[in-house]
Amino acid sequence: MVYPNDFESVAIFNNNYKEPKLHNFEPKRFDEKDVDIEIECCGVCGSDHHAASGNWGNVEGPMVVGHEIVGKVVKVGPQVTSREVGERVGVSAQVLSCFNCDSCKSRNYAYCPKSVLTYNSPYEDGYISKGGYASHIRVHEHFTFNIPESLPSEQVAPFLCGGITAFTPLLQHGIGPGKKVAICGIGGIGHFGILLAKALGGEVYAISRSDAKRKDTLTLGADHYISTADKNWSDSYKRTFDLILLTGSSFSGIDLHEYLSLAKAGGTLHSICGPPSDEMIAVNSLKFIFSGVNLSSSLTGSHENIYKMLQLIADKKIKPWIETISMSEKGVSEALQRVENNQVRYRFVLTDYDKAFTSK
Amino acid sequence: MVYPNDFESVAIFNNNYKEPKLHNFEPKRFDEKDVDIEIECCGVCGSDHHAASGNWGNVEGPMVVGHEIVGKVVKVGPQVTSREVGERVGVSAQVLSCFNCDSCKSRNYAYCPKSVLTYNSPYEDGYISKGGYASHIRVHEHFTFNIPESLPSEQVAPFLCGGITAFTPLLQHGIGPGKKVAICGIGGIGHFGILLAKALGGEVYAISRSDAKRKDTLTLGADHYISTADKNWSDSYKRTFDLILLTGSSFSGIDLHEYLSLAKAGGTLHSICGPPSDEMIAVNSLKFIFSGVNLSSSLTGSHENIYKMLQLIADKKIKPWIETISMSEKGVSEALQRVENNQVRYRFVLTDYDKAFTSK
Repeated sequence: MVYPNDFESVAIFNNNYKEPKLHNFEPKRFDEKDVDIEIECCGVCGSDHHAASGNWGNVEGPMVVGHEIVGKVVKVGPQVTSREVGERVGVSAQVLSCFNCDSCKSRNYAYCPKSVLTYNSPYEDGYISKGGYASHIRVHEHFTFNIPESLPSEQVAPFLCGGITAFTPLLQHGIGPGKKVAICGIGGIGHFGILLAKALGGEVYAISRSDAKRKDTLTLGADHYISTADKNWSDSYKRTFDLILLTGSSFSGIDLHEYLSLAKAGGTLHSICGPPSDEMIAVNSLKFIFSGVNLSSSLTGSHENIYKMLQLIADKKIKPWIETISMSEKGVSEALQRVENNQVRYRFVLTDYDKAFTSK
Repeated sequence: MVYPNDFESVAIFNNNYKEPKLHNFEPKRFDEKDVDIEIECCGVCGSDHHAASGNWGNVEGPMVVGHEIVGKVVKVGPQVTSREVGERVGVSAQVLSCFNCDSCKSRNYAYCPKSVLTYNSPYEDGYISKGGYASHIRVHEHFTFNIPESLPSEQVAPFLCGGITAFTPLLQHGIGPGKKVAICGIGGIGHFGILLAKALGGEVYAISRSDAKRKDTLTLGADHYISTADKNWSDSYKRTFDLILLTGSSFSGIDLHEYLSLAKAGGTLHSICGPPSDEMIAVNSLKFIFSGVNLSSSLTGSHENIYKMLQLIADKKIKPWIETISMSEKGVSEALQRVENNQVRYRFVLTDYDKAFTSK
C-alpha cells in the first residue's frame, strides 16, 4: 500500500522505452481542486512512443507516459465540486490550464500558454506531470470527464486522445450528410476517423499506402478505399473532398501538393500528424493560393467536443478495434515497440492494473 | 479606327516591361455570349509586374496585362442577356470558366480547372487572353460586373482585383465588430485591407516593416500600428488576432512562426501574397499543431463577394488612395517600375485611354 504517499508506475528512463521499469514516485502537491484517480486502464497513443523514445527530445526520466486514462475517483480536494469518490472518470491529454487567458476564456484550454499536458510537462512549481502508465493520477477536477455508463472502460479509454483528435476536425469542418471526407493513414487515429466520420453521416474514403487495409477499412465503415500505390491514383479524385484528414506519424513520402489538388475549393487539408519535431509542412505559395484550400491542424479537442464524442459513441454503439495488453514492464515494452513498428490493429489498451500494482 | 477587327494595346515583349510597345492585336473569336468593352481605365496590380517581368515564367509576348478594368459595353453577342450597349461595367481577373465542374456549380469559378484568366492565359482554342492595357476587351458577359452609379471609374477599377483580394478573406473569416484583424504589408492590397476591414467594423492593426507608414495607415482608418522593426515587437500581441492577412509580394524575411503565435487558437493566417513562383509556405508541423491556427489563402473573390464589396464602398463612400497615370508606353513603363520599387501610395490607375488609342 504505497498510495497515498507514493504512486506506482512503469516508467521510462533515458528514452530506453524497450526496457521500462517499475518505479514508485511522489505525486504532485495535492491542491484544493485536485482529485486522485485509481487508474483502471490506459490507451497507448503514438505520442507515448514519440515521447518515450526521444523523438520529441531526450528525457532522463522517470517519464510516465499515457493520456487515455479511465479510472475511479478515490480522493477529492476540499474545493472540488464536480466529482465524488467512487465515480468513474476519464483523463485526456491535458491536466491543467490557467483559466484566465483568452484561450481559456474561450474554452480553448489546450492552447493556454500555461497548459500542463498529462505527462512530461512542467507544473508551475517545476513538478513534471506523470501520466496513465501508473497506479493513480492526481489531476484538477476540470480535466476529468464523466463516462457514459454503457461504455466499457477499455473501449472508451483510447477515444480520450486518439478518438477526440480525429473527431475535432470532423466537427470543425462540418462533416455530415453530403460531405466527402478522406481519412489518410489508417493507423490508430485513422481508424477512429473512419468510425466517427461515418457516425456523423459523411461519405468516407480511406486512403492508405497499399492495398493491405482495404478489408479492415470497409468493415470499419468506409464507403471507398484508395491505395496510393496504384498508378495515377489521384487522377480520379481532383477537387473531390470537403476535408482531407492527414493522420500519419510523418509527412515523409507524402506529396502535399497532390493532396491539395484533391480538396474542393474552400475545402481543407487538416493535419493531426504528430511527426518528429523537425518536420515541416511546406507547400508552394502560388499553388496554395490557386488551390483555394485551407490548411489546418488541431490538438485533441475541447471539453464540449469530448462530451459530444462520448455521447455519439454511446448512442451509435461505436466499438473501436482494440487489443488489450496487461500492464507490466513487459507489456509496456511490447506495446511501445509494436506501435513503433505499426503492428497494431488499431489501438492498444493497457489493462489488468490491479495485477500490476500492489497498491490496488 | 482599328476596332472592331483589331484592338490597340501597350504590350510587353520578352518580359521587357521597362519598354512596352504600342501594339495592335486581333481579339479572340467573338462568341455568342461575349461582349466588347471599350476600356476607360485600368488599375495596375502587383501581378501585372510579376507577369510582365517574367517572375512567373518567361513570355515572348505580346503580353497585354491588366485586370482591374472599367469600361463601356460597345457590342453584345446574340446570346447575351445581361448586358446592353452603353452600359458601364467592370472586369476582374477572370474571363471564362467551364460552368459545369463542381467548382463552377458551387460558384467558385476562380477554381475551375478550365478557368481563363484575364491575361496571358490560354482559351481552349489556344488564343492567349489579353487584358486591360488595351483599347478594348472581349469577354463572356458572366465575367462583367455592374458598377454602382455613384462610383467614379478610376476609383472603382483597382477594387476589382486588389480590393476583392483583400475583401474575400475578411468575409470568409467573419471580420466585423469584436474581431481583431492584422493587415501585414501596407502596399496596394494592404491599403484596401485597412479600408475594407474598417468598413466591416473590425478592429484593425496595420503591421509594417518600419515606422514609415504609421501616419498613412491611421489616416486610412487603422486603429493601431505595429512596426516589426521595433525590438520584441511581437511580444505584446501573442494570441491576439482572429485574422492575420499577409499581403506582401514575398515571404522573404517573414518568420511565419512568429505570425502563427499572434493568432488566436482557431484564428487564421491568410495569405494573399502573390510571390515569385518558387516560394514556399513552410511551418514546423508540431508548432502548427500546437498553434491551433489555420493557414488559408484565396484568389480574388466570388461574384457575390464582388457585388457585396461594390455595395459596401458605395454605401460607406470608401475612397482608395490612387495615383492616375496616363495610358502610354511611357506611362506603363513608369507604373510597372514604380510598382517594382514600392513607389506607389497605394495604387496606380491608368487613365486617358482616349488619348492613347486612335480607335476611341
